[in-house]
Amino acid sequence: MASTSSMAISQALLPRAVSRQASNPSANRVSVSSRSLLDFSGLKSTNSASIAAPSRRSRPLRARRGVVRASVAETVDKTTETSLIEKSVNTIRFLAIDAVEKANSGHPGLPMGCAPMGHVLYDEVMRYNPKNPYWFNRDRFVLSAGHGCMLQYALLHLAGYDSVKEEDLKSFRQWESKTPGHPENFETPGVEVTTGPLGQGIANAVGLALAEKHLAARFNKPDNEIVDHYTYAIVGDGCQMEGIANEACSLAGHWGLGKLIAFYDDNHISIDGDTEIAFTESVERRFEGLGWHVIWVKNGNTGYDEIRAAIREAKAVKDKPTLIKVTTTIGYGSPNKANSYSVHGSALGAKEVDATRQNLGWPHEPFHVPEDVKKHWSRHTPEGAALEAEWNTKFAEYEKKYAEEAAELKSIISGELPAGWEKALPTYTPESPADATRNLSQQNLNALAKVLPGFLGGSADLASSNMTLLKSFGNFQKDTPEERNLRFGVREHGMGAICNGIVLHSPGLIPYCATFFVFTDYMRAAIRISALSEAGVIYVMTHDSIGLGEDGPTHQPIEHLASFRAMPNILMLRPADGNETAGAYKVAILNRKRPSILALSRQKLPNLPGTSIERVEKGGYIVSDNSSGNKPDVILIGTGSELEIAAKAAEELRKEGKAVRLVSFVSWELFDDQSDAYKESVLPAAVSARVSIEAGTTFGWEKIVGSKGKAIGIDRFGASAPAGKIYKEFGLTVEAVIAAAKQVS
Amino acid sequence: MASTSSMAISQALLPRAVSRQASNPSANRVSVSSRSLLDFSGLKSTNSASIAAPSRRSRPLRARRGVVRASVAETVDKTTETSLIEKSVNTIRFLAIDAVEKANSGHPGLPMGCAPMGHVLYDEVMRYNPKNPYWFNRDRFVLSAGHGCMLQYALLHLAGYDSVKEEDLKSFRQWESKTPGHPENFETPGVEVTTGPLGQGIANAVGLALAEKHLAARFNKPDNEIVDHYTYAIVGDGCQMEGIANEACSLAGHWGLGKLIAFYDDNHISIDGDTEIAFTESVERRFEGLGWHVIWVKNGNTGYDEIRAAIREAKAVKDKPTLIKVTTTIGYGSPNKANSYSVHGSALGAKEVDATRQNLGWPHEPFHVPEDVKKHWSRHTPEGAALEAEWNTKFAEYEKKYAEEAAELKSIISGELPAGWEKALPTYTPESPADATRNLSQQNLNALAKVLPGFLGGSADLASSNMTLLKSFGNFQKDTPEERNLRFGVREHGMGAICNGIVLHSPGLIPYCATFFVFTDYMRAAIRISALSEAGVIYVMTHDSIGLGEDGPTHQPIEHLASFRAMPNILMLRPADGNETAGAYKVAILNRKRPSILALSRQKLPNLPGTSIERVEKGGYIVSDNSSGNKPDVILIGTGSELEIAAKAAEELRKEGKAVRLVSFVSWELFDDQSDAYKESVLPAAVSARVSIEAGTTFGWEKIVGSKGKAIGIDRFGASAPAGKIYKEFGLTVEAVIAAAKQVS
Repeated sequence: MASTSSMAISQALLPRAVSRQASNPSANRVSVSSRSLLDFSGLKSTNSASIAAPSRRSRPLRARRGVVRASVAETVDKTTETSLIEKSVNTIRFLAIDAVEKANSGHPGLPMGCAPMGHVLYDEVMRYNPKNPYWFNRDRFVLSAGHGCMLQYALLHLAGYDSVKEEDLKSFRQWESKTPGHPENFETPGVEVTTGPLGQGIANAVGLALAEKHLAARFNKPDNEIVDHYTYAIVGDGCQMEGIANEACSLAGHWGLGKLIAFYDDNHISIDGDTEIAFTESVERRFEGLGWHVIWVKNGNTGYDEIRAAIREAKAVKDKPTLIKVTTTIGYGSPNKANSYSVHGSALGAKEVDATRQNLGWPHEPFHVPEDVKKHWSRHTPEGAALEAEWNTKFAEYEKKYAEEAAELKSIISGELPAGWEKALPTYTPESPADATRNLSQQNLNALAKVLPGFLGGSADLASSNMTLLKSFGNFQKDTPEERNLRFGVREHGMGAICNGIVLHSPGLIPYCATFFVFTDYMRAAIRISALSEAGVIYVMTHDSIGLGEDGPTHQPIEHLASFRAMPNILMLRPADGNETAGAYKVAILNRKRPSILALSRQKLPNLPGTSIERVEKGGYIVSDNSSGNKPDVILIGTGSELEIAAKAAEELRKEGKAVRLVSFVSWELFDDQSDAYKESVLPAAVSARVSIEAGTTFGWEKIVGSKGKAIGIDRFGASAPAGKIYKEFGLTVEAVIAAAKQVS
Repeated sequence: MASTSSMAISQALLPRAVSRQASNPSANRVSVSSRSLLDFSGLKSTNSASIAAPSRRSRPLRARRGVVRASVAETVDKTTETSLIEKSVNTIRFLAIDAVEKANSGHPGLPMGCAPMGHVLYDEVMRYNPKNPYWFNRDRFVLSAGHGCMLQYALLHLAGYDSVKEEDLKSFRQWESKTPGHPENFETPGVEVTTGPLGQGIANAVGLALAEKHLAARFNKPDNEIVDHYTYAIVGDGCQMEGIANEACSLAGHWGLGKLIAFYDDNHISIDGDTEIAFTESVERRFEGLGWHVIWVKNGNTGYDEIRAAIREAKAVKDKPTLIKVTTTIGYGSPNKANSYSVHGSALGAKEVDATRQNLGWPHEPFHVPEDVKKHWSRHTPEGAALEAEWNTKFAEYEKKYAEEAAELKSIISGELPAGWEKALPTYTPESPADATRNLSQQNLNALAKVLPGFLGGSADLASSNMTLLKSFGNFQKDTPEERNLRFGVREHGMGAICNGIVLHSPGLIPYCATFFVFTDYMRAAIRISALSEAGVIYVMTHDSIGLGEDGPTHQPIEHLASFRAMPNILMLRPADGNETAGAYKVAILNRKRPSILALSRQKLPNLPGTSIERVEKGGYIVSDNSSGNKPDVILIGTGSELEIAAKAAEELRKEGKAVRLVSFVSWELFDDQSDAYKESVLPAAVSARVSIEAGTTFGWEKIVGSKGKAIGIDRFGASAPAGKIYKEFGLTVEAVIAAAKQVS
């Protein structure tokens, strides 16, 4: 496509565009080359002799392909009289440089390149209260390129957040510091989400923006827009390459999240070198395809006005999210390392730090914040307090006029669950009809949606299989954002990370999301971040075993239960029937800082005598027992769909005169949390005759059944056939449990 | 953007385009609506009374948004005299319908809609030999939308593959049949790769096309193009939504894989209903951004000439992969279910099958293949044999003229490893300098690349951290495809699936790929398919524990070792030093049907006395021992970087007079494969005093240490700090091992 045509069309459509990149990759290279010709206005040389020579690195790939691009080492003239803004920007750069240098570990390149956009955002654009990082109506910021966290720490420090004081900057990446190697929401107030694994942050940002759009649609009134904030993100080349980012951004475009503004730090460098080596797509064209508004800031290093204009333009586009591609120089200011991968992920080294100080005219000690910069930023403390106070007044007015809505919004903001919510959970008796736990799950979802104002969610294009539709609500869509059924499409990874964003937006938002259990493999990185970042997402995972039958081994989980039992801070729940499913939901709702995964059956299961909501909370419990004195002949242990098999085996064995205890092991983690006395009451140490049955790997079961017990399970991949046939062929039968019980007891 | 402008530009650029979709979503809707006006030429009505009425389904979303799209139930006039091609296409449709009906399970919708493109591909375009599905130079076909497998089975059946006979079609989705619920390469010769989990297949296809391009560049001569085939794929809307597909397609565009031709089955229906619900991006514009050539076939239901012309055009574009968007009707021919999600994933039901037979004029019994259709397809058996014979002649000529290259190519085709290859593996002594196993890994990679002609691979933008560069080779790039360093960018999931495609292209291609161990979470779905589909990819996973230090918990694996030990048919290897690293590579190279994961350290480790390449092959073995009679006082067990700690503890304990056995447990799976006698010789049942240490979860270790032993590990997330500090704080120390040993013995 001729770049001129593209420009013409874009400009016709987007008359206020600051600038725009031609979408042809070769045009792209040409325009980037011209970066070196840019005039760094505002910085005046006082000592021409000190201008460092542009560095030249060998670029074998480009040379081979005959593409010439000027080396842009961004050697900046020194100045004695820089403007306050440039001083502030350099403060950010040197706080990053100094902290990485002190730790001798970290990523100085991004903060040095992104300091200008960071400055504009935190000093000029964003609305926040540094003394209350949790103020509800704050603008959200996500550093998706999380390795550049010193940018965020420096900004939080300047903005007056108590979480990042000078001593915190000095203990960057040290044991128990508030400034860990990647941004962690649970360590550093002011950090919204945990980033580092690339692509997660932009997907979190989509979730944050979704939450805002949803709450605004539900609660705003013509005379009182009580929910009204933006979500900003900085994404790097690495994020842009990750599939999760494309998934989430496709949804952001589909949903028309107009208050999501993402800065793409286009620095042409990733760890392996120039992005030319593996990343030559047209990001702009892709994002246009995804339904985003795209703006290009050509000079991200010093083009403050361009950055400001781009943000203004982005805010004016209300029906689309905006990607502001900001061309920057990684490691800007470092005479010998700028624009190279060597500045990405390690300290500059004392010599280069000195050279950079020289080059940027920064005579100060490490960690120094000049007085005028300090003073300039100090206004954010009173201003932030005023913003919050103003909003509080607004909320008081809202409350007076719209009492019911205010109460609901309040509970979403505070996370306080409505009194008696758990009474909504359905209960069952053995006479209730047999049903698949995925169907029972849907009864719970619908019951909970009625009593929990912040409950919303959906499936990755499997709503009718996962049984996740909320019947009293419509679909959350661009024009119906007040609704609560989220339609994620076949985008599991994006779904998980979007839910992390939703749950971390407000304590009372409780998102659930769903797919087949086996496809947790697609979203495992997002689930791990739920666990790590204390994001209480509820993962509704159906078709939880070979019990799904004909779809075969690609669809049948085997190792998945074990793989999540091994993951820290997550609850893996596998309910056996109606009461256990309700119990699992009770646990999931109560655990707001520990995500839950519910493994649910496709096939029908009977309601068993002895199960209850309360017992689920113990993780493992006695379902039935005909022994006395805590000395059964044998303990049979089942989970989920196999508890029925264990129950039948127990019945048979009791008929033969055995004292048999039947134990449900719905959640290993919850059982682990119980007292030793309780554990002994369920699994007495003296009884080594134990048999477990579970339609999954036996890996890990030695912990429960002991070395003298027997674990019945599946240590191979599944098979395509009707479910009953596979159970039989794989030996997951009542007969097998009976035989094992006789063998061990 | 005005759709007319877009059209004009596109047409100017791609003059030979058959047709092209406007990129504006609303324009998209308009053009799709016009589908119902299309003339289904070639099918003539003989009984107007039998024309079924178009079905009308409620479309709440679209109705709400005021978008009107005609219902296109594709009611087709009956005919007594259809052309042979239409007959063949209907044969494919009804084989799918009948097989799904008989199984009462499966996905008829895709085969019914994609039968025309399937027919053109297998009957007119593709070069293959049905009697030798493994003929090296065959065209490859991947059904990325694997749920539509009956399409592929029907085509393989008609084409004369022995793997899919009539009885196989009749046992679709049954126990031990050759026609499982999703395509599985290890079950059905003729199926290249295992698909079903969406997006994997198109990424596999990128790998297959990469393999062809690489081998062609290495072995073709001006007078003898011995490697020369295409790779075709069919992807659905679901695949298009998956992030992995975007990752792989971005690379395909970057690499200019001109012989990759993907058909996008644009049927506007996914499981949750109309794609409008969650998928409104412009796929064409995205793919143009990714550097693909894009063609639109508007009438995929009956437009055979359009399909043929699109393939011709795609073949003519040699420097870009091509996406042929083919607009089809899911369930084409079913009067009441076509164009709805109800035809996606379940049997039509007897009544609708009858109605479809009526509608398409198909009076035959289930599974019937008309004689003229049979006869028409029967030519593929002699033609395929001739194609292979012709190629064999060509290869004989090649061999005569280019003996050395021919020998190398032969070994890639056969998978036979060069004699004595393992002698290239480096060995170490305790005097060799301490080194990180990631560095030792690189020595192995470079040694192996010298002796294994099919060895190639790379990293997801971490080559200099994973230490994966092959020093004697350049980068595989668009214009240097003969090289062997693959640069995947930050695209872990795509990387894994691309490697699955490479390894399944030819038995002698041995790809490795790399990232940080924790980011296996991003690619777990692809790794699982390596394991399931017997694809011997080598996963080089560095930074394998908290030993990476400052990057913190997002980057520190905890549960990952356990999560892979729980996965069937995969080897999880965690070498402790140089010899063990070489041993791990020996195992990985030898296991061509079982993928290997190597967990490697960032930090330096000493070379320990007692390790060796051969011993690694046992999985667990005695490193040192001062006991006699197989009765040590205590057994200390370590893996990877913690073997050193266990060794030091052993030394201390021996000084105190204890009889201590030190065991390395480099691979649990390999140890499991050993005889009971061997296992007893390493871990005697009588010795319950056992202590393990591993910088990962203790989950699963009860199996090794028993209920009286003690597992030292990490059952929480990591932390950001220097590695030594974390080890100490987490209690992974010599002192802790000594204390535990005293406690248990």
